[in-house]
This record gives sequence, structure tokens and C-alpha cells, in this order.
Amino acid sequence: MANSKFEYVKNFEQSDNLLPNTWVVVRIDGRGFTKFSTKYGFEKPNDKRALELMNAAARAVMAELPDITIAYGVSDEYSFVFHKTCSLFERRSSKLVSTIVSTFTAYYVHLWSTHFPETPLSPPLPSFDGRAVCYPTVTNLRDYMSWRQVDCHINNLYNTTFWALIQLGGVHATEAENALKGTYAADKNEILFSRFGINYNNEPEMYKKGSVVFRDYELVEPGTHDTATEADNLAEPVPQSKTQTENDKKRRAKARIVVEHLDIIKDEFWDRRPWLLSNKPGKVPKEP
Amino acid sequence: MANSKFEYVKNFEQSDNLLPNTWVVVRIDGRGFTKFSTKYGFEKPNDKRALELMNAAARAVMAELPDITIAYGVSDEYSFVFHKTCSLFERRSSKLVSTIVSTFTAYYVHLWSTHFPETPLSPPLPSFDGRAVCYPTVTNLRDYMSWRQVDCHINNLYNTTFWALIQLGGVHATEAENALKGTYAADKNEILFSRFGINYNNEPEMYKKGSVVFRDYELVEPGTHDTATEADNLAEPVPQSKTQTENDKKRRAKARIVVEHLDIIKDEFWDRRPWLLSNKPGKVPKEP
Amino acid sequence: MANSKFEYVKNFEQSDNLLPNTWVVVRIDGRGFTKFSTKYGFEKPNDKRALELMNAAARAVMAELPDITIAYGVSDEYSFVFHKTCSLFERRSSKLVSTIVSTFTAYYVHLWSTHFPETPLSPPLPSFDGRAVCYPTVTNLRDYMSWRQVDCHINNLYNTTFWALIQLGGVHATEAENALKGTYAADKNEILFSRFGINYNNEPEMYKKGSVVFRDYELVEPGTHDTATEADNLAEPVPQSKTQTENDKKRRAKARIVVEHLDIIKDEFWDRRPWLLSNKPGKVPKEP
Amino acid sequence: MANSKFEYVKNFEQSDNLLPNTWVVVRIDGRGFTKFSTKYGFEKPNDKRALELMNAAARAVMAELPDITIAYGVSDEYSFVFHKTCSLFERRSSKLVSTIVSTFTAYYVHLWSTHFPETPLSPPLPSFDGRAVCYPTVTNLRDYMSWRQVDCHINNLYNTTFWALIQLGGVHATEAENALKGTYAADKNEILFSRFGINYNNEPEMYKKGSVVFRDYELVEPGTHDTATEADNLAEPVPQSKTQTENDKKRRAKARIVVEHLDIIKDEFWDRRPWLLSNKPGKVPKEP
Repeated sequence: MANSKFEYVKNFEQSDNLLPNTWVVVRIDGRGFTKFSTKYGFEKPNDKRALELMNAAARAVMAELPDITIAYGVSDEYSFVFHKTCSLFERRSSKLVSTIVSTFTAYYVHLWSTHFPETPLSPPLPSFDGRAVCYPTVTNLRDYMSWRQVDCHINNLYNTTFWALIQLGGVHATEAENALKGTYAADKNEILFSRFGINYNNEPEMYKKGSVVFRDYELVEPGTHDTATEADNLAEPVPQSKTQTENDKKRRAKARIVVEHLDIIKDEFWDRRPWLLSNKPGKVPKEP
Repeated sequence: MANSKFEYVKNFEQSDNLLPNTWVVVRIDGRGFTKFSTKYGFEKPNDKRALELMNAAARAVMAELPDITIAYGVSDEYSFVFHKTCSLFERRSSKLVSTIVSTFTAYYVHLWSTHFPETPLSPPLPSFDGRAVCYPTVTNLRDYMSWRQVDCHINNLYNTTFWALIQLGGVHATEAENALKGTYAADKNEILFSRFGINYNNEPEMYKKGSVVFRDYELVEPGTHDTATEADNLAEPVPQSKTQTENDKKRRAKARIVVEHLDIIKDEFWDRRPWLLSNKPGKVPKEP
Repeated sequence: MANSKFEYVKNFEQSDNLLPNTWVVVRIDGRGFTKFSTKYGFEKPNDKRALELMNAAARAVMAELPDITIAYGVSDEYSFVFHKTCSLFERRSSKLVSTIVSTFTAYYVHLWSTHFPETPLSPPLPSFDGRAVCYPTVTNLRDYMSWRQVDCHINNLYNTTFWALIQLGGVHATEAENALKGTYAADKNEILFSRFGINYNNEPEMYKKGSVVFRDYELVEPGTHDTATEADNLAEPVPQSKTQTENDKKRRAKARIVVEHLDIIKDEFWDRRPWLLSNKPGKVPKEP
Repeated sequence: MANSKFEYVKNFEQSDNLLPNTWVVVRIDGRGFTKFSTKYGFEKPNDKRALELMNAAARAVMAELPDITIAYGVSDEYSFVFHKTCSLFERRSSKLVSTIVSTFTAYYVHLWSTHFPETPLSPPLPSFDGRAVCYPTVTNLRDYMSWRQVDCHINNLYNTTFWALIQLGGVHATEAENALKGTYAADKNEILFSRFGINYNNEPEMYKKGSVVFRDYELVEPGTHDTATEADNLAEPVPQSKTQTENDKKRRAKARIVVEHLDIIKDEFWDRRPWLLSNKPGKVPKEP
């Protein structure tokens, strides 16, 4: 075929398969979202519509890619987790990252008008970048998730106080910044409460905890499973019968993908949802 | 800060900077576009609206990322080329790929309704995956571009004949496939002409050549520049004054981004547009 | 400094740090050892002197690089294992591999005359190549070690029978090969026993099991430690006091590096030597 | 086969093939050579025997690996260059690096007693680490080589003056260091000449220029070849007949591998030895 003369250029493609038997986290971030949020008048410190649009896009990504077991979002970022035994796209990094980023963007743009019916999108459009990171053990993975949730907490407490000072206290940004320099969490809580009558604990959970997206099955009793150790012990994907694989697929498809605002740092969240670490679908709860 | 306990997880990020002084090609491909094109009733063998939507999205990507010097699209794929001296995002592969894929997807979804006003998008939405490849020399880069254009030609000739057999000849897909097995280009041209009165040469250039997207400056006389050798000789980005950089930026911003359907295999295309390989903006043509 | 003009070339170095919290195995292999072993008249199927030279070189490597916790050798290959928390050379792959390969080669050449006093080395000299592989869990690591030891067994049984047929049975290589085609372990045992009176079980352990090199401490009672789970649970190097680090270092230095020929597939080997997985030096046995 | 249960561990090997059509430089460095040189009483600032041992080892590496076109050594480091079209070991980085490091070490240890007949080696033995770097163009490659040679010059001028101050001037190391702080090349030349009567230009070429190792063919007239451009234009290995490959191999084998101390920064060195960049063996000079 005439093309063969040029086909040698394919040899320049270098492989980028991620290490097997490790948890793959793909984190995406909004590009230039400070500017973007100003353009579309996002409310400060949190814009409910914008966060719900992020969550809707994340749910859609999980629905299209059943290999994702859990996702966590805060602000303009979202982390998607592939189970350590996942072999989607032969674990090629570019392919995993680009697919997630593209699917997420497609839904973000497509669903924009539902969440912002009064402010249609115009160029430059919102976009996201992404990267993949491998975590060898359950502890590493959970520490990653905890890292993001602690970050959410730290930033939200800061932002809530910062914007209270500006919006309710009437000070300028620089003043607010200075007022917060060197303060601890307790100080910020105090400022909020004593000066503005705001009890931070009563702030919406979505702002304080971020959003966790996962397939919902019946919760199990804590202490009945040791999925973390089981997951760490896994050496490679457990071979299972075609029927079993089909069953898993059906149960996964039946499960509702939920968006919740829970503590994912403590054990309880993981203990009661063993399917997140085991990758074995749980019992689909009866519809009420 | 409380977060420090978990922050060690950042150390698991591995660097993926692409080799300096090489041409970076990011190619994106539609995911599951066979199914997608059926769902939205794309015309066969080529759907003008779908191709123009691809081109519009590619133009938007180039407008948002001035570091891209040229792009080439065919069917549901597009290749974007960064100049060898480009240092955008420190040449991090994931960042380059995900940014292009995301921006392209955003425009593809956003502009859909302009090109397909009668068939609104519905989930699953269109998405793209992507990858980056490095090419050390101008010859390698041009061979890559030629590879894609020869591929376009081979596929389009095949598809044009295949669908003529079906749409005009009234045969089934398998029959058409069998009729084409082992045929050469000349045979396909003959089938088209003798059986259906189609002169392949008269087919639209966009179908035969694909689409080339680039900033348009005044063409130069062939033979007046040897940009290929100059580009190969470049060892690293040439340091230039701030004024020069600013000037370049302005000229680039002024230049119209055009979509053309030209032969990019022959030297002429490159000889007359030295800015593609030199990365120095040309003369902006006067508006008529 | 005048050099700065050229110093940009350092930017072409790409990082190759191995994923943290994974076991690093560096396996080295003799280059062209079939030819080499013929040149120096190695005995078939096993040359005791050559194997002991390999073992001596491996011991020296372990003595110079205390970060190696265990090594396993068979024929002309040796695998060296770095603990998952090891941060030697920032886990740079080339640096780890080249250091091991170079140190091993140095001792192999230096100690040659001790093991082969009558056949001095002459060019081309023996050399080795190497590569690093990461294993995320203890199971993966132990499966790697088992893989090599099973390989040792399979090859040694084959070679023992093959060379018995030639050396004792007087047949040609091709005949021996044909005689063994499609045979199982039991068949080979049978050939050895019935035709040559050889009980494979009585063959030297070094030939049947390969060689395991490690620091020797007092064995513990099986079942008293669960080091595998503890090791898998490790998220990152456990911070310890300077005194503790110094103590560990001293105990490691005091420990004898032994070469044994044990089963490393079964749990017992690992259960009784918890320091191999925990990286915490055991109790140094009293000299008799 | 029983082994299959464990063989999955092979899937953890990740590919590390270097980008095609780029010059591969493998640089090796002595490990802990400051301590090593003290142990064996190397003369300061340069030990002729030690440098000649390095050169002898480098020559041996080139003789065993004909794919290396040129090598450059200074102090305890050596850089080996593979031609951009080289496909040895499928360009796997670990394999290229470890092979060179191992072969070099083998000869260094083996030839030690020839160069240091009175001080036999004892553990810890000398060893080297190494790494591979890719350079896309001839300019990048030559700039790399120039970088090393400029470094040689800078270090040697410094060391020569430093040790003159100590050995001839009778000052302590710290004093010598202080005396040289902030000095330029001219200052150092002046110190050497006015205080110690040493004309730096008369120092041995090996110390001032380092050592260049290459296959020697008949020099060509400068200006008759433009190998740099030709090399840059190469897109992939030029296919040649078996006879041609055989001829090249023979001529390469016949060529003497020389160690010279020449300026490799200026064009002349490269212009007169086109085979270094073209990889086409030149004319083997007649033996005198």
C-alpha cells in the first residue's frame, strides 16, 4: 500500500501503560476558572449551580465508564478512581486521562444551560486538564482522598470567612486577607460566629465536605468485611466466570449513581461500602 | 497545616515532560464514532456538516492555543502540531493532551446545534481521546502529516466506491466489500466512472484531501527560504527581546485562522508558508 | 561562566523515578553467557565454581548496598530486591540498575581468579545487563520470587536430564532434545532414575533451588508476625528517630550476609524471617 | 506448565524504549571516586595512570559495541554516543545503559593491574553509574560534547592552579580555595605563570582537552561534506543491501579505535571526520 512509505512514523509512539495492580486516580481541574467564574458571575464563596453542574458531569462520566469506582469533587476539580485491577484501555495513561477529560467536558458544556439557564455559554468555553497518578495501596488511595477532603475543608473555611468579611463586614479584599493571615481554624470559626453570627457547622454539607460520587448498594454492618486488606492482598484481577462477569455488569448498571457529601476520611464510609475497594457490586437496594 | 499528614501523596505524581526540541503532535480521535454517526444519521461516505463541525472545533482550539502551528483533520480525527521549541505547560504530556481534548470537545458540543440544528445532542455525548507523539526532525513531522493525508486519500477512495456500490448500485455491504477486495486505486476509479459516472477527481476537496488549519500570512516565493534546514538546526528556543515577542504575539493574533483542503505532502505547501516550520509569524495580508 | 552557553543540554535529561511505595526488583542477566560458558569450559548442566562466583558477587553487592533486603540467583541471572520504602538515589531507575550491574560486574571480574584459578579471564570479558521492575504488593513480590524459583526448578530438571542423556547416555544433543519433547516432570524423574540411577531429589540444593542471599538474624516462631499485611499497609517510610536509624544501621552491619538454598515459595521462609518484608533488622544471633 | 501461575508478574515490566531518530548519549560516572582516588593514592590534580585506565576501558567498550560512534572522557566520567539511527536492543534505555556500565566496569577492574601494578584492588571495588539522554539534532549533540569539554577545561584549569598553590606554594586547601574564589581564567593563568613558572598551555593535552575515542579512517578535506545537515535530514535508518551492511561491518572492524586529545568544540574535528555523524565508515588508512 502506498502509505507504507510514511507508516514508519507510528514507531515514534511511546507506550505509557500505568503500573498494574495500582489504584489509578485521574484528577481534572478547570482551566482558568477564576476568570471563568467571574465572567459568568459565580456566587462567592460557593456557587451552588456551578457545583451541581460539576456533580452532574461527574455522574455522567461514571455512568459512561463503569470502571470508575468512586469520584470526589470540590470546587473546579474532580478526582476519578479506577480500581487497582482495572485494565481499561490497557491502562494507557493518555487514553484514560483524555477520555475522562473529554467526557466530563462534553457534559459540562451540554448541561450548562440546565444549571445556568439565564447565562448562555460563549467563547472562550470552559475546559479542563487532567493527569493520572498511581497509588499502590488502599492506605495510599484513602490518604489521597483524605488529602482532597481536608483541602476542601481548609479552603472552604478560609473562603467562607474571607467572603463574610467582604460581603457582610464591608471590607476590601486586601483587608480581609490581612485579617486572616496567620489565623487558625478556631480563629476563623470565631470570626464567623462572633462578628457575623454564622455557625460554620451549619454551612451546607456540599461546601464543607465536597461531593462523593459512587454506585449505591445496601450498606453493610461495619466490621463484617476487611476489604482494605483483601484489596491489598489482590495480586491481579481475580478470574471469574462469564456468568459472574455478566451478573456484576448488570448489578452495576442497575445501581443508582449517587452524589453525597459525606466524610470520606474516617473508616466508616469505607467499611459500610465494601464494594468501593473490592470492586464487587453490592446488593441493589429495593426501590421504595 | 493539618493537611500535611496526607500531602505525601503528591510524591506519587510522576513527571511526563516530552523531550525538548522535538515536534509534538497531539492526535485526537472520536470515541465510538461509528455508533455515534449512525445515531445522528451522518451521511455516507462523508457528512459535510459533521466535518465542518470538526473543523470549527479545530479552529477554536487553535485560537485558544496560539502555540499550535498547524492542524490536520480527516474523518473523526484531528492532529495538532506544536512547534519544536514550544514550552507550553513545560511540555507535560498529560497537560498538553488533556487541554486540547477538552477544548476540542467543548467546542464540538457547543457548536453542534449550529451544524445540526435539527438533531439535538442527547447522552451518550460525543467524546474524544488523544495522545502525544514527538518527532525529532522536519522530515519526520512532514512524513507524519503525509501519512495522515495518504490515509485520508486511501480511505476516502475506498469509502466513496463502497457507498456508491451500495447507494447507487443497490448491493449489500458484504457484496460491496467483496467487490473491493484486492482492488487497486485504478480499479476503484474505474468502478466509480464506468458504473456510476463518477469522476473521483471531481469529488469535493475536503473529502479527498482532509482539512488543514493554520494561521494565514502572505505566501512567499518558493525557494526563498530554507525553513526546514533552519528548523532542524535549531537547538533550543531562540532568545528574543520582549518587544519582538510582543510583536509576534500581535501578528499571530491578527492572522486569520483558515481551514483549507490542500496537498500537504508536496514541498510547495511548506515552501510557500515558511512560518509553519520557523514559528516566526509572516506578513498579515491586507484585508480586501 | 563560559559553559552556560552549552549547559541547556542538561534539560534533555528526563526523570525516571520509580513509583514510591512499591518493591523494586533489579534483575541482571549475563550477556552472551552461552558462548562465555563454552569459552571457559563451564561444566554441564551446572558449574559449581561459576555459581559460587555469582553468589560471591551477589553477597558483595548486598554488602555495599544495605538497602537491598534479599537477592535470588539462578544460572547467570540475579534478582535484587529493594524494600518498598527504599528511597536510595531518589528511586531513579537508571541509577539503581547501573549501580547494581556495575558493582556486580566488578566483583565478578575481581573474584574470577579465586573461583577459576586455572583459567584467567581474557577479552571479551563477562558482562551483565539489567532492568528494574516495580511490584506494588507483597503478593506480587513473592510471586515474582516464586516465578524465578519455579523457573530454576523447571530448567534444572530439564538440563539435568538433557545432559544425563548426553553425558551418560551417549546420545547427541538433538536426540536428547527429541527425547524430552513433551515430557512432564514425572517423565524426566523417571528417565533419570530408571536409565541412569539418578534420584533427582538427591541433586545439590544449589542446583535445584537456586541461591537466596539475605542478612541473617534469629529466626522467629511462625505465626508470631504478620509482616506481609503490615508491609502492605505501609503507606510511606515510617519516620523514626536518628538513634533508631543508627541502631538499625549497626545491626544491619553486624548481620552476616548468608547464601542459602531454600524454598522461597512456601510461607515458612518469609514467616520466620519477618525482617525481609518489614525492613526492621532482627536479632543478631550470637556467634557460636 | 506449573510456572504459569506466577508468570503474570512479567506484565509489570514497563517499556523504556528511547525516542527513535535521536542521538543517544550514555554517560557513566565513577561512584565515590574522591574516596577511591585517595585510597589508591591518585596523583593530583591528574593521575596519568588512572586516566589511561579509563581510556583503555572506553576503547574496549567501543570494540565490543560497534554501534557506538564516539566517546568522550574526562576525570572519572565517560560519555558514549550511539548514532541516531541505532536500533541496538530496540533502544531500550536500561539495556543500553547497563550493558555499557557493565562492560566498562569489567575492563576497568580487569585492566587495573596493568595500570596500577603495585596497588592491587581490594573491596570496596570501583564502580560506575550511568544514564541515557536523547538529543534530537546534531547541534544538540555537539553542544553536549562541547559542554563536557568546556567543563573539562574549567575544572582542569582550576585544579591545576589549586594544587600548584598547595603542592608548590605550600598553602592549605582552604587557603587555596579562598585564593581562587571569584577568579577568572586569566587570573588563574597568571597565578600559575607568575608564581610557579607554569605555562598552562604546555600542560598535557589529555588533561586540558580530555580524551576522544573513535574509529580512525582517512581524514577528508573540510568543506567536502555536509554531514550535519545530512544527519539531521535522516528520518529513519537508510535501508541498505546485505552486502553493504557486511562491507560496513568489515570496515568498522578493520578501523583502529584511537584515543586522542583534540578540540571537539570547533567544526574542524567533525568536518574532517564525516563518519562520526553519517555512520558510514570511511576509508581505512594504510598501515605505515
